[in-house]
Amino acid sequence: MIGVFDSGLGGLTGLYELKRLLPDADIVYFGDTGRVPYGSKSADTIIRYSLQDMAFLSTFGIDAALVACGTASSTALEELKKRYTIPIFGVIEPAAKEAAEKTRTGKVGVICTQTTKNSGSFERAVRRLDDKIDVLTVACPLFVHLVENGFSKAGDTVTREVARRYLSAFDGAGVDVLILGCTHYPIISWAIAEAMPGVELISSGRAAAKALADAVGGTQSGAGTVRFYVTDSPESFESSAGAFMGGDFAGHAEQIDISKY
Amino acid sequence: MIGVFDSGLGGLTGLYELKRLLPDADIVYFGDTGRVPYGSKSADTIIRYSLQDMAFLSTFGIDAALVACGTASSTALEELKKRYTIPIFGVIEPAAKEAAEKTRTGKVGVICTQTTKNSGSFERAVRRLDDKIDVLTVACPLFVHLVENGFSKAGDTVTREVARRYLSAFDGAGVDVLILGCTHYPIISWAIAEAMPGVELISSGRAAAKALADAVGGTQSGAGTVRFYVTDSPESFESSAGAFMGGDFAGHAEQIDISKY
Repeated sequence: MIGVFDSGLGGLTGLYELKRLLPDADIVYFGDTGRVPYGSKSADTIIRYSLQDMAFLSTFGIDAALVACGTASSTALEELKKRYTIPIFGVIEPAAKEAAEKTRTGKVGVICTQTTKNSGSFERAVRRLDDKIDVLTVACPLFVHLVENGFSKAGDTVTREVARRYLSAFDGAGVDVLILGCTHYPIISWAIAEAMPGVELISSGRAAAKALADAVGGTQSGAGTVRFYVTDSPESFESSAGAFMGGDFAGHAEQIDISKY
Repeated sequence: MIGVFDSGLGGLTGLYELKRLLPDADIVYFGDTGRVPYGSKSADTIIRYSLQDMAFLSTFGIDAALVACGTASSTALEELKKRYTIPIFGVIEPAAKEAAEKTRTGKVGVICTQTTKNSGSFERAVRRLDDKIDVLTVACPLFVHLVENGFSKAGDTVTREVARRYLSAFDGAGVDVLILGCTHYPIISWAIAEAMPGVELISSGRAAAKALADAVGGTQSGAGTVRFYVTDSPESFESSAGAFMGGDFAGHAEQIDISKY
C-alpha cells in the first residue's frame, strides 16, 4: 500500500504517473483541500501540516509514501524521514537528478512556490549532484491559482501574460532545462513552454513517481485500488480532479478531520 | 473590546475603517492565514473554521464582533449568532442596505468569492429590503489571489484583463451600484472601476465597520489598542498588512494554534 499526499489537487499528476507505472499497486491519496494552498505559507506551518498528513496516511499501514507536493517536499521531507522508517519519496531529488543529467549548458531553471524557493531545496539537490551547474530559481505564486480557477485552457491570455512576466526572469540566463517544481504546473505547461522556447520541461511529480516505482514497485502487488481522502468537500475535489488525471475522474473522495492527527 | 476576524488580510480594510470611526476602541484582530483562503472552500468547512475563530476571539472577553470576511459572513453568521449573545456584525447586511438605498436603476451587482455566490446571501439581503430590486452576482475567484500576490498596482495589465473578463458578465445588465462582496477587493478597485464605468462601488468591509460603530460605538471607550493574531507566520502577515491599512503597518502579530479552539 502506497500513501500519497498533497495540499490538494496537484499531487494527482504524480498519482496519475504512479498508476500508469504500477497498475496493481493499492494507493491511498490524501489532499489537504481544507488548508490549500501550502506554497504561500511558512515552513513551520507546512511541517506541522505535513506531519499530520503523514500521520493520517499511516493509519492505513502504508509501506511507502510519496510527498507529491513541491512545498511539503522542500520543507518537511527531512522531518518526515526522521519519524518514519518506511521509504518516503519527495519531488525534489528525482527532478534534480533528471535535470542534472539532461542539461548541456550547465544552467538549470526551477519554477516553484515562494515557500519552496525560500527553502533553496532544488538548488541544493542539483548542486549536490554536480556543483558546476548553475541553478536559477523563480517563484511563480499565481500559477497554482490560475490552475485552480479555470485559467488553464491552452491559449488563455491571462495565463500567457502571467507566464511571460514571471519567466522573463530567465531572459539571457542560458537555461536549457526547467524543473516544474510545483505539481500543479504541468496543467499549464503550454504557457510555460511558449515563454521558454527550446527549453526542456521536467515534471517533478512525474519524476518522483518514477523514482518510487523503480525503488519499491516490486513489492506493490495489490488489487489496484485507489482511495481518496480530503479535508474540504469531496464534491469540489471530485469535480476538479479530472484535469489532473488525464481525463474524467470517476473516483469518490471522503472527507476527514485532519486536526485529529 | 471589539473582536474582528477574517481568513487573512482582507479584514484589515474593515479594521482600518473601524479605527478611523472609533479611535479609542480596543480591538483584537484574528487572521486565519494558516488556512486562507476561505472563498474557494465549502460552506461546512467555513462554518467549522468560523466557530473556531470566534471561540478564540471570545477568550478576550469581547463585547462585539465583526466578521470581516465576505465568505464567513455569508455562510457562518447565523450559526455564530445562535451561539453568542454579543452583537455580531457581518459584511452582508450593511452593504446590501447601502446598495438598496443608492440604486436608481433598481439593478444591483455583487462580486464575491464562489462560496459567497453559492450562499445567495447578498441577493437575499438586498431583496429583503426591496424585492423589486434585481441582483446579479458574479464570482471572481482569482481576485483575492491577484491581491495577495502583488498584482494589485494600478494599471497592472493582468489584473485589468481578469477584471474585464469577469465583469463582462454585467454587460447590458444596467447595474448602477456594485457591492465589493469580498474585503480584499477594495485593493483593486481601480481595475473594477475601469471595467464598470459610471457604477458606484460599495466596500462591504467599510459598510460593516460603519454599522458596527453606529450600533455599539458609544460603549467602546478604551485605550485604542489593537492586537493581532494569526495562524501562519507573523512576519508574512506584518509585511503584507500595510497595503490594507492605508500605508505602512507598524503592528506586531502573534501566532496561535487555532485547532485548540
